[in-house]
Amino acid sequence: MRTTCAPLTREADPSLIGFDPMRGPEIARGVHALLPVAEQLFDELRRLSRDGPGVTREAFGPRESEAHELIARFAREEHLEVDRDTAANLVVTLHGREAGKRFLVVGSHLDSVPRGGNYDGAAGVVAGVLALALLARNAIVPPRTIKLLALRGEESAWFGKSWIGAHALLGRLSSVDLAYLRVDSARPLGDHLRDVGADVDAIAAGRPLMDRDALAAFLEVHIEQGPVLEARGLPVGVVTAIYGNLRHRRVVCRGEAAHAGATPRDLRRDAVVATADLIVRVDAQWAQWLARGKQLVVTHGMIGTDAREHSISRVPGEVAMSVEIRAEDSQTLADFHRVVRAEAESVAQERGVAFEFDEPIVNVPAAMDERWVARLDALCGEEGVACMRLPSGAGHDASVFANAGIPTAMLFIRNQYGSHNPEERMETADFAAALRVLVRALLDPLDRDT
Amino acid sequence: MRTTCAPLTREADPSLIGFDPMRGPEIARGVHALLPVAEQLFDELRRLSRDGPGVTREAFGPRESEAHELIARFAREEHLEVDRDTAANLVVTLHGREAGKRFLVVGSHLDSVPRGGNYDGAAGVVAGVLALALLARNAIVPPRTIKLLALRGEESAWFGKSWIGAHALLGRLSSVDLAYLRVDSARPLGDHLRDVGADVDAIAAGRPLMDRDALAAFLEVHIEQGPVLEARGLPVGVVTAIYGNLRHRRVVCRGEAAHAGATPRDLRRDAVVATADLIVRVDAQWAQWLARGKQLVVTHGMIGTDAREHSISRVPGEVAMSVEIRAEDSQTLADFHRVVRAEAESVAQERGVAFEFDEPIVNVPAAMDERWVARLDALCGEEGVACMRLPSGAGHDASVFANAGIPTAMLFIRNQYGSHNPEERMETADFAAALRVLVRALLDPLDRDT
Repeated sequence: MRTTCAPLTREADPSLIGFDPMRGPEIARGVHALLPVAEQLFDELRRLSRDGPGVTREAFGPRESEAHELIARFAREEHLEVDRDTAANLVVTLHGREAGKRFLVVGSHLDSVPRGGNYDGAAGVVAGVLALALLARNAIVPPRTIKLLALRGEESAWFGKSWIGAHALLGRLSSVDLAYLRVDSARPLGDHLRDVGADVDAIAAGRPLMDRDALAAFLEVHIEQGPVLEARGLPVGVVTAIYGNLRHRRVVCRGEAAHAGATPRDLRRDAVVATADLIVRVDAQWAQWLARGKQLVVTHGMIGTDAREHSISRVPGEVAMSVEIRAEDSQTLADFHRVVRAEAESVAQERGVAFEFDEPIVNVPAAMDERWVARLDALCGEEGVACMRLPSGAGHDASVFANAGIPTAMLFIRNQYGSHNPEERMETADFAAALRVLVRALLDPLDRDT
Repeated sequence: MRTTCAPLTREADPSLIGFDPMRGPEIARGVHALLPVAEQLFDELRRLSRDGPGVTREAFGPRESEAHELIARFAREEHLEVDRDTAANLVVTLHGREAGKRFLVVGSHLDSVPRGGNYDGAAGVVAGVLALALLARNAIVPPRTIKLLALRGEESAWFGKSWIGAHALLGRLSSVDLAYLRVDSARPLGDHLRDVGADVDAIAAGRPLMDRDALAAFLEVHIEQGPVLEARGLPVGVVTAIYGNLRHRRVVCRGEAAHAGATPRDLRRDAVVATADLIVRVDAQWAQWLARGKQLVVTHGMIGTDAREHSISRVPGEVAMSVEIRAEDSQTLADFHRVVRAEAESVAQERGVAFEFDEPIVNVPAAMDERWVARLDALCGEEGVACMRLPSGAGHDASVFANAGIPTAMLFIRNQYGSHNPEERMETADFAAALRVLVRALLDPLDRDT
């Protein structure tokens, strides 16, 4: 991870802007004028999805839909073309100079984890629609058509499956995926897709719903969600790669329920103690792997005894938990997965329990397009935005497009207090910096062929 | 624990039966004749409370009430006197020869843990009502009045609090207790007591609802709930003491929620890993204490991240679990409680989390009446029932009566596959053996003064 930025005060070089007359300072003024609009959009998003201390916009649910409607309404007011695609994603279009050319897609999502933060996903959608609005307000016809995609169902919190809208668009949603139940409603994804107007039959057929070859690139702006930019004092990052992940939504430990008072220690097969043992062993293994220089994270985000059966006075016979491993390369993912399974086998032997792992969901790591990474890095320099290159530990819609062979790149915005929690923050000035770089990229895009 | 039983074939000594003409062989014949009735009552109890593979009779809920009604209906058919006391416990009375004398109470409970077994509690109530029915059918007026008490709300699974009906009767239910919420309904105990017709104001006043001095003794028949009698091949046990317990319904570990992908290990404050660490440390301490000869059990029956907030891709910021310690003496309870708190403090320091323990609920250990223990032991011998003396790791209604100064004793019936689970079993022949001993005890009771 290195810092490759121009000095903060350097004036943009007009020769880099391409054929469009809009120059760096004009873009900066245009962005500045739109910041009150950005804040208003974020406020309205927060208001429509407030849930306790955080926000909840459930994938394919009413609050995600309201968020889509908010962005659509704003886009119409800005005289942009508004549509929904076959997977019920929101599409906002600004037509470019030449109709036959490949178009650019700017995309991110509007759903959130339960009681999460307001900017995870929404920052990228708002940046995209404001970029288009800025061009439209200034009567600038971009060299290529630009489509903003507000993708549905990015967060795995709802169905276990990530990036559902993106997967659907690219023909990568299977009938198994369509049967996943949403954690709150216990209804299958297929039903929820139908609720919001998606063509489930077309999705289930597994054909791409868009022509991949028609895209020049997929660009995503997103908050970092981690502490790296904040720690280094940088407003923006250029993503080099996106970690892959391997997830078990449900690992069940089966022991034997028994009376807590009447069952001595040596006759117990306690599922909670066995699962605790496994978690502690996996944590110790993780620490060792990090010490050996491996890059990965491991998380058990969910654990629970069954409320219909558990009691304070019963030796727990069963407990379920989730396991998620993330790593920059597929080999590390697979290797650490084997470690988890082996530790589970050891605990099972020693404590007389059995661990049942459901089918893992695997999202392979995704490389960003090297030319686009260099371009965004250079544009940060042009715009006087201090930045660094860094990998993304979090997964993103962008990885689906990258793994479909579409040149893909991401800009990270510095954020505070992490993400997936109500404390998540983002400074408007950092958002503005990313928006300036995005507008520059849209005005002077790379083609796939050059 | 020793076996102090007469040879299996020894004839009962009529001199031990007291002034009643009914002799051992007659009692055995009477009990034998009632066994089909016993099986029918157990079948009906199971039918009215079947829940998945087990039974659920929620404390102060409709299925507990139906169970009470079943026993009341049977008692009326047997021409026994049926009443409800101020705490809505069921009271079945068979009047004795002399009205002024202290009366005997035979008691147990009809509620169950969620998806528990059919015999935990119900065995004692059925034994009691059949004992009275046997005397009534044979037109025997016992030396003392006998009251069967089917006590409500014995299981702590519902409110965290154990032996609620017994506590209420003896004036030991506080306003704090009355505010406990039932885990399934989330409504307070006071409301549930009112639902079933109890006089909540009288209970809240904390006055005993029965005259303790009017009781000659409290006797309880109960399945063992543990593996000891089964392992030793003995149908019946005589209880010497009941373990006390110390319970935290809710120990909350607070860390910090964060994005699983974007938050490296050294910046995490993971509540699930910290709690797993605590559970494993407490388990290791327990093993050490057992090795040093201490008698105790420790259980975390419930654990869970909050389903409204947790997700597979979020570092868990919070998790709650229960802690229960049981021991034969109060000192061991208090000492191990300090160990748990100290281990929690260590984990909190090391992993950057905080553990919040709710107010512990303490049930002090209870000694059984030595004279009654000797009497029941001797009567087993008279009846040719192989038995042993043993402590009870499980808590029982009997402990409330014992700790109120009432001479108290318990008979355990061998059972299979533990208790508080759907696999729990009891052989009818073992039930019959305990019933014979109980009838003998009712016909020849000890007084408190002798």
